[in-house]
Amino acid sequence: MFQWVYINSEFVKEEDARLHYRDLAIQRGYGVFDFFKIVTNQPVFLDDYLDRFFFSSGHMRLHFHLTRSELKDIIYTLIQKNGVTDCGMRLTLTGGYSPDGYQLASPNLIISQHTIQPPSQEQYKKGIKLITYAHQRQLPEVKTIDYLIAIWLQPKVKSAAADDILYYKDNLVSECPRSNFFIVTKDEKVVTPSCNILKGITRKKVLETARQHFDIEERDISLEDIKQAKEAFITSTTKMILPVAQIDDQIFSEGMTITTKLQELLVQFQEGKLV
Amino acid sequence: MFQWVYINSEFVKEEDARLHYRDLAIQRGYGVFDFFKIVTNQPVFLDDYLDRFFFSSGHMRLHFHLTRSELKDIIYTLIQKNGVTDCGMRLTLTGGYSPDGYQLASPNLIISQHTIQPPSQEQYKKGIKLITYAHQRQLPEVKTIDYLIAIWLQPKVKSAAADDILYYKDNLVSECPRSNFFIVTKDEKVVTPSCNILKGITRKKVLETARQHFDIEERDISLEDIKQAKEAFITSTTKMILPVAQIDDQIFSEGMTITTKLQELLVQFQEGKLV
Repeated sequence: MFQWVYINSEFVKEEDARLHYRDLAIQRGYGVFDFFKIVTNQPVFLDDYLDRFFFSSGHMRLHFHLTRSELKDIIYTLIQKNGVTDCGMRLTLTGGYSPDGYQLASPNLIISQHTIQPPSQEQYKKGIKLITYAHQRQLPEVKTIDYLIAIWLQPKVKSAAADDILYYKDNLVSECPRSNFFIVTKDEKVVTPSCNILKGITRKKVLETARQHFDIEERDISLEDIKQAKEAFITSTTKMILPVAQIDDQIFSEGMTITTKLQELLVQFQEGKLV
Repeated sequence: MFQWVYINSEFVKEEDARLHYRDLAIQRGYGVFDFFKIVTNQPVFLDDYLDRFFFSSGHMRLHFHLTRSELKDIIYTLIQKNGVTDCGMRLTLTGGYSPDGYQLASPNLIISQHTIQPPSQEQYKKGIKLITYAHQRQLPEVKTIDYLIAIWLQPKVKSAAADDILYYKDNLVSECPRSNFFIVTKDEKVVTPSCNILKGITRKKVLETARQHFDIEERDISLEDIKQAKEAFITSTTKMILPVAQIDDQIFSEGMTITTKLQELLVQFQEGKLV
């Protein structure tokens, strides 16, 4: 479906988009990435994602020599070459071909397009099930390629008939492996953790839109707070706002009124009706 | 120097040893590996390393279809093809070409040879400097490719004029990123942590040989225990036994008598003089 991939200053056929095994992603799991949506040939909230990508690469000392403007040109050229109007795009930056397999080298940059796989209509309607797991992501504020624990836990998710994992540590929840986590309290405050998480772009947009209609709190959420919550949902680029119907044995039985309202607001916002 | 690399059932030229960018090591940092020495064309302690490699791959659900005997045949063929009598060999097994970038696929196996880079004679003679850092490796008992924190910390090591990092958590030390850690107590017990570490093959061999001459303890080591210690050293396949002269501000000034004795015993053991 996507014929072209950009890799280290050239556009290559998808099947030729390869890295030598000496790359530090393969040798040492070292790299960062970002992922955004393309709707009708336009990247959505591109500058927010590029801000984060430049932050991640800088923080991990993966210095590549493209300005924001050059990177945008490549992104738009790739969209045009592949000719798929609605999809996702991933920027991946790895540790490069290290001579000793440990020291950083000149990073490898890969820009690729992907089909978006949103949750099912049933998941949006009924909400999903999360299971909690005691874990804290490494360097949580950086979008690294480290998903070791999340992928390792997949059989556990499946055997619990769950959809995803909610990480917690020392009684405080942080995030899901690829989503941010929110609760709605009984007095209808919209609350999301502020520490030890990756700050999602969709999370940011939800906070921006929700702030106009609800009380917002960015603060720690304990496991006990969840027990007292009225609603819960997760947010991500792919999922937008996805209701949570159950966390471990706790079922959220009071409906999803606020979550539904926020879903509508976010769609309006993304479609530019509020901007 | 090494012309051939084995990758997914064939021997290819080193420059052609590439993985497609969809591999889960590149996308999600998901993979395991192992590394052993080859001395005079013979892998050293091969079965110990293969035991660990099969454990790591099984634990991470990276199921590949080679028996131990088939894997050994490939290893010996590669040694012969490359014709380098003394070097290192690395087995790398990644999450494979995932259709959705998240689910495990058929793993990719890479077997490659590398120059061994032992510490300098000065490091062996004077001992190295470690700095402590609060961190616990993810899935510590598995030899995954996750070295995110270790590589990210390199500038910190350099600016402290140190040689390596010693991880600790909740006041207990565990290991260095690529080495196990030992202390020698004032009453000449040889002590090494037993929990939350990767159990090194060299660590195992040191314990086997040391047990015949010294009291051995595999138990938790606190930061306070280090303050009271007489000697300290680290062990790894590449380093064998490397004395530690300093940890943060603490200098080990009582010499390295026991460490030196253990170095001699390990060399004898590896050369088959004790077996």
